Amino acid sequence: MSSRKHKIERKNLGTSPGTLQYIGLPLDNQIKITRIDFTLEGHQKKIIQNYSEASPSTTGITWLNIDGIHKPEVIAEIGRLYQLHPLMQEDILNTLQKPKFEFFGENTLFIVLKWLEYNPHTREVEPEHVALVLGPSWVLSFQEERSRDIFEVIRKRIEAGAGKTRQNGADYLLYALADVVVDQYFRVLDCVEENLDRLEEALFKNAEQKHLEEIYTVKRELGVMRKVVTPLREITLSLSREAPLNGQSLISANTEIYLRDLYDHINQVNETVELYRDQMTSLMDLYNSTISNRLNNVMKVLTIISVIFMPLTFVAGIYGMNFEYMPELHWRYGYPFAMGLMAVMVVIMLLWFRRKHWL
Amino acid sequence: MSSRKHKIERKNLGTSPGTLQYIGLPLDNQIKITRIDFTLEGHQKKIIQNYSEASPSTTGITWLNIDGIHKPEVIAEIGRLYQLHPLMQEDILNTLQKPKFEFFGENTLFIVLKWLEYNPHTREVEPEHVALVLGPSWVLSFQEERSRDIFEVIRKRIEAGAGKTRQNGADYLLYALADVVVDQYFRVLDCVEENLDRLEEALFKNAEQKHLEEIYTVKRELGVMRKVVTPLREITLSLSREAPLNGQSLISANTEIYLRDLYDHINQVNETVELYRDQMTSLMDLYNSTISNRLNNVMKVLTIISVIFMPLTFVAGIYGMNFEYMPELHWRYGYPFAMGLMAVMVVIMLLWFRRKHWL
Amino acid sequence: MSSRKHKIERKNLGTSPGTLQYIGLPLDNQIKITRIDFTLEGHQKKIIQNYSEASPSTTGITWLNIDGIHKPEVIAEIGRLYQLHPLMQEDILNTLQKPKFEFFGENTLFIVLKWLEYNPHTREVEPEHVALVLGPSWVLSFQEERSRDIFEVIRKRIEAGAGKTRQNGADYLLYALADVVVDQYFRVLDCVEENLDRLEEALFKNAEQKHLEEIYTVKRELGVMRKVVTPLREITLSLSREAPLNGQSLISANTEIYLRDLYDHINQVNETVELYRDQMTSLMDLYNSTISNRLNNVMKVLTIISVIFMPLTFVAGIYGMNFEYMPELHWRYGYPFAMGLMAVMVVIMLLWFRRKHWL
Amino acid sequence: MSSRKHKIERKNLGTSPGTLQYIGLPLDNQIKITRIDFTLEGHQKKIIQNYSEASPSTTGITWLNIDGIHKPEVIAEIGRLYQLHPLMQEDILNTLQKPKFEFFGENTLFIVLKWLEYNPHTREVEPEHVALVLGPSWVLSFQEERSRDIFEVIRKRIEAGAGKTRQNGADYLLYALADVVVDQYFRVLDCVEENLDRLEEALFKNAEQKHLEEIYTVKRELGVMRKVVTPLREITLSLSREAPLNGQSLISANTEIYLRDLYDHINQVNETVELYRDQMTSLMDLYNSTISNRLNNVMKVLTIISVIFMPLTFVAGIYGMNFEYMPELHWRYGYPFAMGLMAVMVVIMLLWFRRKHWL
Amino acid sequence: MSSRKHKIERKNLGTSPGTLQYIGLPLDNQIKITRIDFTLEGHQKKIIQNYSEASPSTTGITWLNIDGIHKPEVIAEIGRLYQLHPLMQEDILNTLQKPKFEFFGENTLFIVLKWLEYNPHTREVEPEHVALVLGPSWVLSFQEERSRDIFEVIRKRIEAGAGKTRQNGADYLLYALADVVVDQYFRVLDCVEENLDRLEEALFKNAEQKHLEEIYTVKRELGVMRKVVTPLREITLSLSREAPLNGQSLISANTEIYLRDLYDHINQVNETVELYRDQMTSLMDLYNSTISNRLNNVMKVLTIISVIFMPLTFVAGIYGMNFEYMPELHWRYGYPFAMGLMAVMVVIMLLWFRRKHWL
Repeated sequence: MSSRKHKIERKNLGTSPGTLQYIGLPLDNQIKITRIDFTLEGHQKKIIQNYSEASPSTTGITWLNIDGIHKPEVIAEIGRLYQLHPLMQEDILNTLQKPKFEFFGENTLFIVLKWLEYNPHTREVEPEHVALVLGPSWVLSFQEERSRDIFEVIRKRIEAGAGKTRQNGADYLLYALADVVVDQYFRVLDCVEENLDRLEEALFKNAEQKHLEEIYTVKRELGVMRKVVTPLREITLSLSREAPLNGQSLISANTEIYLRDLYDHINQVNETVELYRDQMTSLMDLYNSTISNRLNNVMKVLTIISVIFMPLTFVAGIYGMNFEYMPELHWRYGYPFAMGLMAVMVVIMLLWFRRKHWL
Repeated sequence: MSSRKHKIERKNLGTSPGTLQYIGLPLDNQIKITRIDFTLEGHQKKIIQNYSEASPSTTGITWLNIDGIHKPEVIAEIGRLYQLHPLMQEDILNTLQKPKFEFFGENTLFIVLKWLEYNPHTREVEPEHVALVLGPSWVLSFQEERSRDIFEVIRKRIEAGAGKTRQNGADYLLYALADVVVDQYFRVLDCVEENLDRLEEALFKNAEQKHLEEIYTVKRELGVMRKVVTPLREITLSLSREAPLNGQSLISANTEIYLRDLYDHINQVNETVELYRDQMTSLMDLYNSTISNRLNNVMKVLTIISVIFMPLTFVAGIYGMNFEYMPELHWRYGYPFAMGLMAVMVVIMLLWFRRKHWL
Repeated sequence: MSSRKHKIERKNLGTSPGTLQYIGLPLDNQIKITRIDFTLEGHQKKIIQNYSEASPSTTGITWLNIDGIHKPEVIAEIGRLYQLHPLMQEDILNTLQKPKFEFFGENTLFIVLKWLEYNPHTREVEPEHVALVLGPSWVLSFQEERSRDIFEVIRKRIEAGAGKTRQNGADYLLYALADVVVDQYFRVLDCVEENLDRLEEALFKNAEQKHLEEIYTVKRELGVMRKVVTPLREITLSLSREAPLNGQSLISANTEIYLRDLYDHINQVNETVELYRDQMTSLMDLYNSTISNRLNNVMKVLTIISVIFMPLTFVAGIYGMNFEYMPELHWRYGYPFAMGLMAVMVVIMLLWFRRKHWL
Repeated sequence: MSSRKHKIERKNLGTSPGTLQYIGLPLDNQIKITRIDFTLEGHQKKIIQNYSEASPSTTGITWLNIDGIHKPEVIAEIGRLYQLHPLMQEDILNTLQKPKFEFFGENTLFIVLKWLEYNPHTREVEPEHVALVLGPSWVLSFQEERSRDIFEVIRKRIEAGAGKTRQNGADYLLYALADVVVDQYFRVLDCVEENLDRLEEALFKNAEQKHLEEIYTVKRELGVMRKVVTPLREITLSLSREAPLNGQSLISANTEIYLRDLYDHINQVNETVELYRDQMTSLMDLYNSTISNRLNNVMKVLTIISVIFMPLTFVAGIYGMNFEYMPELHWRYGYPFAMGLMAVMVVIMLLWFRRKHWL
Repeated sequence: MSSRKHKIERKNLGTSPGTLQYIGLPLDNQIKITRIDFTLEGHQKKIIQNYSEASPSTTGITWLNIDGIHKPEVIAEIGRLYQLHPLMQEDILNTLQKPKFEFFGENTLFIVLKWLEYNPHTREVEPEHVALVLGPSWVLSFQEERSRDIFEVIRKRIEAGAGKTRQNGADYLLYALADVVVDQYFRVLDCVEENLDRLEEALFKNAEQKHLEEIYTVKRELGVMRKVVTPLREITLSLSREAPLNGQSLISANTEIYLRDLYDHINQVNETVELYRDQMTSLMDLYNSTISNRLNNVMKVLTIISVIFMPLTFVAGIYGMNFEYMPELHWRYGYPFAMGLMAVMVVIMLLWFRRKHWL
């Protein structure tokens, strides 16, 4: 298990549902709230210090990015401004919450995702909690304040006026944010694949115990990835299918095509994870077979040596006996005879081994 | 298998269906019935001594908690008061009944759950039978009288007036009771995860037979958990989906959101159980590979020793023979020659092993 | 494979479909036909000698139990009286027919079940063929005449007037008969579970070859059970769901609740079979790991002994050589020196083994 | 792989779809076309020499059986007479085509099946290509001309006027032909089961390498069977369900009951194949466990022998040393002392082995 | 992993969706665009040098084949002429995109396929990216410019006027192109099967480590094939089913029959891939069992030799001791006695081995 997960205590067990509590890594940084308002014509960026500045704009599209979710009071304040359901707020604060999507009424769509970061030192895939809320003309994005602001790239795109983000509505922005998260999965998969290739090559050369432990680790991390990616598939599929039914005002037909594309990417991630898991199992089998193969070879060497030297040593033992009346000992050619006998035995053994294809 | 289960006899096999019989651990304690009536304004708690006090109230919401189900006559009496179907009463009394839900008519919803308790001594997950019945303005909760009153926390919440329990209807109370049971699953999973982590660490250090037996036990307990949790998933999904169709008067749209949240939690439990089962299998594989790896190393040591000493001992045996005419024995430098021969043989062996990457 | 199955020949391969032929164990007993007519007020029981007595009654409900199906002419006669479809008659006579249900027209429902008997001597689960036919006001039950009359218990219930059988229609009687068969599955599972527990305990103590063969046998028997139980699940589900659509006149809403209960039981049997199969696989894995663990220990003992004694024997061999000029042999302290040398070697070996955690 | 399959070349890859080419074993026999026209009253059989005789009759039902499909021109001629779609003709000629069914328009139903023959010499299951076409009042049956005319039995039934074939329409004839093919599956399964029983018994007695190869072969053949039988299930299910919708004029309600029966049989074949595959896997596991068990026993013998004799040989080696000053050698009771020492060592070893439960 | 895949960098991660970038092997050849216009009466072929020549024709059917996709500007130009959606253009340029189909509006159908080429040197299956776009009266085909023009065969068919291509619409051309790709799968499968047969035969003769690695490689390649073929199944099924609903003007009823045939072929490829994967697993098991079997035999030889010679050597050691008072040494028949004793021991050992069925 990731050591990180262990530090997270499920404090809220036993409390009334909907009670706001942060469940995650203990953090104490400042929470940074960035607001961008944009229309086709222009955009305005602001670091928010005061909650009164956070309320949704009446013209254009508002994107509020909350970088840090470890302070329940901040989430509660945002929740009050945007009228978020208590259960939604609870899920935003719970970094153990798995990916999901939910419509709250006809005007609010809530999505939980996981950003993945590959840690090359521990060789672990570390998930970070991301929550997105889509309203009629606003998008809220919540992220754990850990590595960095993962949505920086989108902000730059909006500022540059490039891309389609500014030409489209809030629903396209939601898609763009999710797309950033999914693109990261490909990068993590590339790291995993590199590991896999390295392991494969190493195993074909020389199978060692440490490879075994690496296979186990990679497999476990793929299990973690699967747990994160699989629900996403269902989410995007449902979004692109059900959207026009449940949230006509939320998701436009234009964005739907992009959601289908996103679904496609997630599907590809998912299948690659499965393919790699399959290959890890095959690698494990290969490892085991290689080991038993090698054992076989070791035992052959031992057996050949024993089969050759045991009879020889026995013959030497015979003529090492101290009986008074042993005619051979007094023969002139006793010694050469004994040596010849041994040589004949060795030849017979070798022929026998050859016939058994051991040599 | 849990030793507990063995003491439970399926006494009712062969009797007419619907005949009331307690199937469970033999118990003889007093059955404790607690009644709470509450409205938005206030609440009233009472330990019931007389069945006449148990009938549903006409104003507000009545919650009857029956702590102990080992006396069929008590269940029958409650069943008469609340008009419970004979098959429902049979299921309340049967601690071997697996989780399920069923609508009886349009006014009664029946749910069977399992409370889980992790026993750190036997390392077993022990299920306790819980049955919930939802009527138009009342909730009945039945539990085995074993460890403690598991719904105490809800009673306290109602008494404190805190939380949403008192502000919502009987359906929300039903949800709150089920939520308490599901929260406990996370606690049990945490115990299992601790075991898993400990095992994993131990295996990476030193694989022993006892780990094998622990892996087996954990896997078995995860199997038991799965059997308990899997049907729950279907139950909550059906409730949140079908509820507005079959029991309009029973479950309100407001509670539906909470049921979806509950479904989400159960899903998470379920997936974690599967993830752990997968990991137990991987651990087992790791264990096996480690053992055969180790066997390989043991055999290498044996083989190296044999390959080196067998020829040496043979040479010593040669010169231990008692032939009269053995020229070497009488040479001045026979002894150093023999020792030198042996040294050369050792060097050759060592070089050969090095080339085979055994050293 | 059950030895029983082998005696059954598929005689009818190649004949025209619907040709009546008994396919089963060769039997020659008398076929016993018991008829019970009952209404709410009373009942009448009769052993039938003459087919004219077997025709359905016009008042009340008729239950005809045919104990023995090895005579095609008897089935044909009953089939004529109750207008059973030729294919239905063929299935009644075929003890290899797997469980199924089928509506013939709107007035006849045909069910094939398997009664299971656990044979403690061969440790095999032996299926017996049971066929039930439900008409508007009659029920026919066919059973192989082997162990005993398995529906005796229902007959007693009807005679006692107890239970609900007499208060309900023919459809409830059908349910009651099926319930008797399913209850038996729990008993067989209890036998299997006893076996499993015994095996588990034995394996933790001492894994032997015979346990392996027992695991294999239990697994095979669980496979047989699964083949018998799985289709039943579908059958009862379809019955409780489709019944009101296809056979309104056959199955009443009241009986439907009981059918759902039956479905529930079958589901429980099914899941338990799967759980046990899983555990057998885990036990097999445990067995294998235990064996390779033990092999490892055996090899360690062999290796330790060899590593210690081979060098010692070599040293003894050195000083057993007969060279004339071996200075050590003539030293005063040559012997203690050699013995000391050996002791030092032993100590080094032991330290090395300790460092390798082999001791 | 079946050696047969290798001789079949996919000649048509790259040609335009619908081009007629025979894909199968090279054959050069005469193609035999048998025509039977029958009504309820009578029947007429004819070996056809001239294509003009092959055209469908206007009264009664025509069954044309083409025994041999290796001449595309013959199929093309029949196709012209009966207006068969080019793709249908292509599939009739392709012996590698897997089982399928397809409606061409509303008047023609096309079915591809595989006749199976168990070859006791190679222990392989050999598939033969069978194609059936059902028109409004005619049936065409195509079969590879290899072993024999597999539909001879139906022809005899028609000639005898027995059975229901002549009383029913062309759809019943189609069912009867398919039934003959499915019945054969049971015979093949009986051969496989015999093999399985023999293997099982042999493994319990004495596991050998050859059993391993037999298990592999049986498993492979079951894989081939599954590939042939699985699509059939879907076919018959679709036929009995969709028939009244798509081909009202083709399949009568009466025949539907028989199709459901056929579905049932195929299902039984399918489940038995799966059961046997499962058992082959279990047998493989049993084999492997038996082998490692045996290895364990072999190693125990080796270890016991080594542990006993190595120390003894060492003691003998000690007193075989030639030191001048070895007091024991000159004791009067040195020899008995040494022998006694050895005896004591043996006893200690034996006690130790007993404590370890090795003896 | 295929070494090829590694050279492909996912350059577009992080860029705005719909940005045109080539993702694939670095190539620098000229892109070759071939245009064919054809009607029932005639056809016209042209190598296009200028984009103005590439616009769709107003009469007859236009097929534009773009051989080479490594220049985004070319794709963009074609996209402008035929009004292709930006996401479609992105997928055409991405050689890592998995197979899929998508309707863009009612007039455009987009399909991504993979051409497979078996590389006999690396024993790897190398996928090539193919994209097809169907418009009302035109078809675009994009292919990686690597091995050769894979659609050459279709062009020849059109030029020859043979086959049905010219008699049917653009939808039939689309089918014909896809059919060429699927036919290639059979050829690749034949290569895999040859490998499989060779491996099987080799394993039955003599299992070696290199076979293990080959099994692993074949299994991995089958995994790659599955990833390519599985989505195709869904694609053709959806096309033949949904086509008349979503794209009435695009796909005619006539072409539908051909699409079902294509679905059938893909299904067959898919099942064969699964069958082979299953057999690879069985082969792996066979390999492992063979190895442990062989180990067993090696150990038996070692044990027999040790059990026979250790006691003999011990006896020889006894009489090699130098005690002064050893009566046997001075007996006249001491030597023959010792030799006889050894002979008796050997006979006893041999009898014991025989009883254990080791000889």
